[in-house]
Amino acid sequence: MWVLPEAASLKVGILGTGMVGSTLGSKLVQLGHEVRMGSRLANNEKAVEWEKSNGPRASHGTFADAAGFGEIVFNCTAGTASLAALTAAGASNLKGKVLVDVANPLDFSKGMPPSLAVCNTDSLGEQIQRTFPSVKVVKSLNTMNCVLMVDPSLVRGEHDVFVCGNDGQAKDRVKEILKSFGWKSVIDLGDITAARGTEMVLPLWLRLMGLFQSPKFNFKVVRAS
Amino acid sequence: MWVLPEAASLKVGILGTGMVGSTLGSKLVQLGHEVRMGSRLANNEKAVEWEKSNGPRASHGTFADAAGFGEIVFNCTAGTASLAALTAAGASNLKGKVLVDVANPLDFSKGMPPSLAVCNTDSLGEQIQRTFPSVKVVKSLNTMNCVLMVDPSLVRGEHDVFVCGNDGQAKDRVKEILKSFGWKSVIDLGDITAARGTEMVLPLWLRLMGLFQSPKFNFKVVRAS
Repeated sequence: MWVLPEAASLKVGILGTGMVGSTLGSKLVQLGHEVRMGSRLANNEKAVEWEKSNGPRASHGTFADAAGFGEIVFNCTAGTASLAALTAAGASNLKGKVLVDVANPLDFSKGMPPSLAVCNTDSLGEQIQRTFPSVKVVKSLNTMNCVLMVDPSLVRGEHDVFVCGNDGQAKDRVKEILKSFGWKSVIDLGDITAARGTEMVLPLWLRLMGLFQSPKFNFKVVRAS
Repeated sequence: MWVLPEAASLKVGILGTGMVGSTLGSKLVQLGHEVRMGSRLANNEKAVEWEKSNGPRASHGTFADAAGFGEIVFNCTAGTASLAALTAAGASNLKGKVLVDVANPLDFSKGMPPSLAVCNTDSLGEQIQRTFPSVKVVKSLNTMNCVLMVDPSLVRGEHDVFVCGNDGQAKDRVKEILKSFGWKSVIDLGDITAARGTEMVLPLWLRLMGLFQSPKFNFKVVRAS
């Protein structure tokens, strides 16, 4: 397996122990990065399990442990719990770092299908950026299932991943990581307010998942020649 | 030019005299249908102009005139004005008919970019269906610019148009019209509540239009093989 030269290896924090966090964390370990998975409790069972099955470059701890460890941090918590998780992670642990916000503010409290806890004139990405102004929030990967996030080749042909955020260099770093996942088409939508657009795709995405009975699909933007 | 045999020619009402209404109306005339464009006032200048440039199968009148004339009616009014326009058109004129709702509830009153006047737990499509229960509302074509609506070949390769609505036969009729416009890939999302999904794509669509500086693009859903 091809692994990054040591100099290119990153320390990455993953917040969240669900499917998204473990899938992204495992991919980053496979690519040669050191990854610490964080959760509310230091001894989260799923995080322990994930560490065991991912070898010496994988570790786990609290949200604060993972945020402090990472040069880059991925928010893979449930969207409605993200602000609390990031507060637990600690602004000082996140300060100046790139935070890749992969979450969607899906609200399951009123039954199915879920609605969005925030949308239209605001977004989760913007809420996070406002709450943590010293963090470089980059919204990305939230418009698809996690198996596609780390393996776009599952879908034949070109398809797109969106990024948005206020810091150009932070977006450049995230684009490099996306390329290392196999992404060829990365669409930069501009500043973090574009998170409204990508989060609001979720109702259509959920409907398509119901129709296809599979989460293995993605959107491609096609243009007139 | 190929024109429908007389038996296949429809009477179509178009509500709205803007770009969307005139583009759809002209295409339907070109396909051999009889089209009446309706607006708030019977002598709307743009409707008069449109009639002049579209020949004997084109006519114009009030919203009520157009709704009464059409076997199928297209709602091409501004989304925030649609319920008022349909009320002016008259429930009795629309009763039992297929209403193709092409509108988006874009709210420009709070500046740019527009937000949605209704979204998340409701949609314009659903509001129209609730307000006019005897009408067969089919939401479609609202995820793209009107030049693409009537000429999908402008974008190379396959790309998608969505339909949703509560009445299967009504959707079948709309799918036939979409095919006559050149659409090959029509995705049926189910009942009218799916309008939330297609209307909520607008913020991303608007962002992409700003990025590309062109409205000539569309979405394609790509699936794992």
